[in-house]
Amino acid sequence: MDYKSLIKSTNDFPIEGIIFRDLNPIYANGDAFNSLLIDIEKLCQGKTLDIIIGIEARGFIVGAALANRLGIGFACVRKKGKLPPPVISASYELEYGEDVLEISEDALKNGNRVLIVDDVVATGGTIIASVDLLNTLKADIKGIVSIIELLSLNGSNKITQKTNIPVQSLCQY
Amino acid sequence: MDYKSLIKSTNDFPIEGIIFRDLNPIYANGDAFNSLLIDIEKLCQGKTLDIIIGIEARGFIVGAALANRLGIGFACVRKKGKLPPPVISASYELEYGEDVLEISEDALKNGNRVLIVDDVVATGGTIIASVDLLNTLKADIKGIVSIIELLSLNGSNKITQKTNIPVQSLCQY
Repeated sequence: MDYKSLIKSTNDFPIEGIIFRDLNPIYANGDAFNSLLIDIEKLCQGKTLDIIIGIEARGFIVGAALANRLGIGFACVRKKGKLPPPVISASYELEYGEDVLEISEDALKNGNRVLIVDDVVATGGTIIASVDLLNTLKADIKGIVSIIELLSLNGSNKITQKTNIPVQSLCQY
Repeated sequence: MDYKSLIKSTNDFPIEGIIFRDLNPIYANGDAFNSLLIDIEKLCQGKTLDIIIGIEARGFIVGAALANRLGIGFACVRKKGKLPPPVISASYELEYGEDVLEISEDALKNGNRVLIVDDVVATGGTIIASVDLLNTLKADIKGIVSIIELLSLNGSNKITQKTNIPVQSLCQY
């Protein structure tokens, strides 16, 4: 499916100089959303997974739906202060700003085979922080999947350099 | 399924006096998550729906998975500043604080039959604000579904008084 024809691009949002890629028109279309999930499932083929990890907030949309399609669980990486204690934290630089991500200490069992899902890979900061959190919990990270990859920001290469895990994406800008 | 045995309760989170009900242990368990979605589908039986509305951020988890199970689309009600323009806004009082919710002006077509999904009904403020947004977009609101309802805060009654729409929930505290 030609997802780019559905993705809405907005200049200078949320701040000047950023082109925001809005995936909501895909999610709002039942057939397009289903096709997107089928294509993400194809990227997962051959991986045995115990749990999908979704990054707040837009990673929850595809991550949770994918987890249920695969019949497995879903766990959240959230912004600071959203999860009840005990949590572990990792800070990261955003495309625009800085923030802290957290995961519940009991979100996973040692050795759980996980897939990280997010909507957009920009600088790669949130995903690198998420990998840090998952490594602390001794997860077995089987892959990183994103719908969109912003090639000019080189996030995918930075992620692979830092974590040794390749990033798979469906659309590149 | 006995969801309460999986829900983790934390006293004084995020502020003193609040008991936080954490649904993440349900989502993390593939069978429990699937069972939850089946039970929510039962609540929807007999409703013809075009799109599921999930409220940021935890409403995205169940809302998006439910939408895909039903073969329909998913749209987000988000916190202020997260959606690209044009949006419409509604302010609301939280269980702890005040905030603004937004929806994209083009999220729905006139007359779309929608179901609002969230994880916890507390004071009802976020759902009442979401109903306001959906009414502005001339949606046909077919129901409101929540996993947990906090009876002491009377949110469900407030919602129904203000909107004439009953709230269906799976667990009550």
